[in-house]
Amino acid sequence: MISEIPAMICSNLSVRSDGQLLFAGQDTAALAATYGTPLYLMDEDRIRERCHTYITAAAAAFDGKARILYASKAASFKRMYEIMREEGMCVDVVSPGEIATVRRADFPMECVYFHSSHKSDEDICYAMEQGVGYFVVDNTEELLALEQIAAEKELRQRILIRLTPGIDPHTYEAVATGKVDSKFGFAIETGQAEEVTRLALAQPHLELVGFHSHVGSQVFDSDVFLQMIDILMEYIAMIRDKYDYLPQQLDLGGGYGVRYLPTDPELDIAANLAQVGAYTKQKAAEWGVPMPEVLFEPGRSIVADAGLTLYTVSSLKRIPGYKNYVSVDGGMTDNPRFALYQAPYTVLAAGKLNEPATMTCSVVGRCCESGDIIQENVPMPESIKRGDLVACLTTGAYNYSMASNYNRVPRPPVVMLHGGAAYMAVQRETLEDITALDL
Amino acid sequence: MISEIPAMICSNLSVRSDGQLLFAGQDTAALAATYGTPLYLMDEDRIRERCHTYITAAAAAFDGKARILYASKAASFKRMYEIMREEGMCVDVVSPGEIATVRRADFPMECVYFHSSHKSDEDICYAMEQGVGYFVVDNTEELLALEQIAAEKELRQRILIRLTPGIDPHTYEAVATGKVDSKFGFAIETGQAEEVTRLALAQPHLELVGFHSHVGSQVFDSDVFLQMIDILMEYIAMIRDKYDYLPQQLDLGGGYGVRYLPTDPELDIAANLAQVGAYTKQKAAEWGVPMPEVLFEPGRSIVADAGLTLYTVSSLKRIPGYKNYVSVDGGMTDNPRFALYQAPYTVLAAGKLNEPATMTCSVVGRCCESGDIIQENVPMPESIKRGDLVACLTTGAYNYSMASNYNRVPRPPVVMLHGGAAYMAVQRETLEDITALDL
Repeated sequence: MISEIPAMICSNLSVRSDGQLLFAGQDTAALAATYGTPLYLMDEDRIRERCHTYITAAAAAFDGKARILYASKAASFKRMYEIMREEGMCVDVVSPGEIATVRRADFPMECVYFHSSHKSDEDICYAMEQGVGYFVVDNTEELLALEQIAAEKELRQRILIRLTPGIDPHTYEAVATGKVDSKFGFAIETGQAEEVTRLALAQPHLELVGFHSHVGSQVFDSDVFLQMIDILMEYIAMIRDKYDYLPQQLDLGGGYGVRYLPTDPELDIAANLAQVGAYTKQKAAEWGVPMPEVLFEPGRSIVADAGLTLYTVSSLKRIPGYKNYVSVDGGMTDNPRFALYQAPYTVLAAGKLNEPATMTCSVVGRCCESGDIIQENVPMPESIKRGDLVACLTTGAYNYSMASNYNRVPRPPVVMLHGGAAYMAVQRETLEDITALDL
Repeated sequence: MISEIPAMICSNLSVRSDGQLLFAGQDTAALAATYGTPLYLMDEDRIRERCHTYITAAAAAFDGKARILYASKAASFKRMYEIMREEGMCVDVVSPGEIATVRRADFPMECVYFHSSHKSDEDICYAMEQGVGYFVVDNTEELLALEQIAAEKELRQRILIRLTPGIDPHTYEAVATGKVDSKFGFAIETGQAEEVTRLALAQPHLELVGFHSHVGSQVFDSDVFLQMIDILMEYIAMIRDKYDYLPQQLDLGGGYGVRYLPTDPELDIAANLAQVGAYTKQKAAEWGVPMPEVLFEPGRSIVADAGLTLYTVSSLKRIPGYKNYVSVDGGMTDNPRFALYQAPYTVLAAGKLNEPATMTCSVVGRCCESGDIIQENVPMPESIKRGDLVACLTTGAYNYSMASNYNRVPRPPVVMLHGGAAYMAVQRETLEDITALDL
């Protein structure tokens, strides 16, 4: 094994002496031969390890009063929810489609939190009928619809209220959600959070369980969480003083970053949660607020580095004086994150890691669109050619879940790796699937 | 009818006296009630009118020696190819998925041009077996694979070669494809175009029919086409002199712009094609080159303003001192073009067009992602509320075709409007469809 290659950004990556990339200890070339490309691989053992890390760390940091919710929009399919059930995770869902998937996995519905800034009456009815445990209320219209539908169904629905604490996490604009100017939640600063809290407490068919807040994505320290706790604890103390209400649950959202590049830091989840735990307890004590159960919602942080995508090269185009292009059989259809955010990824010639990567290339996708790029400035070996395998690392989050059929390209299957074996979790789309709804 | 509303950017839009938006003469509220929202509407009569405009204008401009190819990646589904067949259009496809769809529409396969910078051996086999008329060759690996597979199949495959003329169309970077530095085609400037032309002429199982070039998207005059003709005619004359070869076909690609905003110009296709025709004939005469058959590949320009998307509002969020957000039941899942390119769109309160639109809003989608925006700075009436209908105009191109199931949101149906009636062309995805491939 060669283990010093700097691109090995997660412990589930290694290189065989012949230069072949191994993932979760398995030969990527053999997996590509068995399942075809493009191919999403997911390392089940890594997913379970991450769940365990979060659950253990949160239990230690919050004296057993903590829950970890998998933010399943990162990667939502039936098998994923089965793994979450087995690991003792709760889940956060954002649509009837995710709820339907959770149901198929026999997941305990009382452990499901329904987010989303858009919930139609139909969505609310469906979620209540499926027994979703908690609604995270985003807007006043939703609150009033929840009350009315819960009354009609003669039930008392548990809810949390989503607060916007007014923190800019300095990450991508598109995934910065904690600012006051946000489509999500109720701003504390403007008084709208207090107003909706008062309104929620007055609804006979709703039980306000607590508050939720989320500040953003790809954050690499806990500063934004500590800032959020300052704001939320002050808010909770104010609400207690004015309305004699104390939350049972405080959901701090997700956002811990993962390594897309070797230069990204490796985050110590246990240390970070310990810091957040100590600070939360200190602030609760300062405000005289009893500690609520604390919730975290990791999504990317659970599944991103458990994922890897394999592609087959179709051409190398060297344009003298300009650039080199390596074309592969996937692209923005299976991973739109470069097209959307110019997101960084580590891309490797999976079968040629013992050759020097001396040629700088753009690795581009198959769509008829110049913006269909997987990554720019990728070092590749000079010998890269049609038929070679290319791996894009850290694709477990927001790849399968964001995939499209642009250019009528079928979506790849998701193959799970576990204990040295492989099995399919999501089948490859066929041309029949692609045209099935055409009349 | 109120017809002076400046947002009425296409002749198929009008407003009833009660303020209701009509599309292709039909009541958008009634269509939303029948088919639900989000809903893609497509005006079949407008599509046919645009095909007719192009075919007639090209025939006039090129003395009957012209073909119009619908660039079907703009909107690819079975019914669309049936309409193209009936209108006498050829089509351009970019993948086996599009080829499979063309087949289902009983389209004459000899009128199909297969583009794409990625064609695997499997793709090539499939396309040849389906009888695709022309391959537009993008790279050397493809050329050699085509020769080998055509030899195995004992056929002679007609091909065009894609050339990059080295023109920057000054449009979005992501859709600028005519520059030398492009993943597409062979650069004339570097000598690579000549090299592959020579190589193509030497292949016994390939018949070089001509050359293709495409300079970009959303261009509002013919300057780039005239520049392209300068370069291509000089190239053709050089190839004739050196290799005694003359192309039968010259494919000038697509790129004519459409109106997304009332401030966008309305392009006169007939006048533009007449200009290009006169210039092409002049240049051909100057170089002593016999006029080839000239091809155009409009996609957006055929279908964009034939499309309109209807949404239902779930909430209006006014954040004092910041912004107003109108949330709707679709978004980047059915129209990712704002998220991808910050693309402009005209968005209207479809049932309230007789009210002053005095409130500036961001119209945002249902996904749990801050970047899920349909449009910013949209004027809306102050009374906009949950349950109201919102229309996004000019969504016929690159909306359905780019749609995803992010957040496991089902894709909307495509409903065609024709002669005062409506019918479904693509069915709405169900929750069962969404989870069908999960194991």
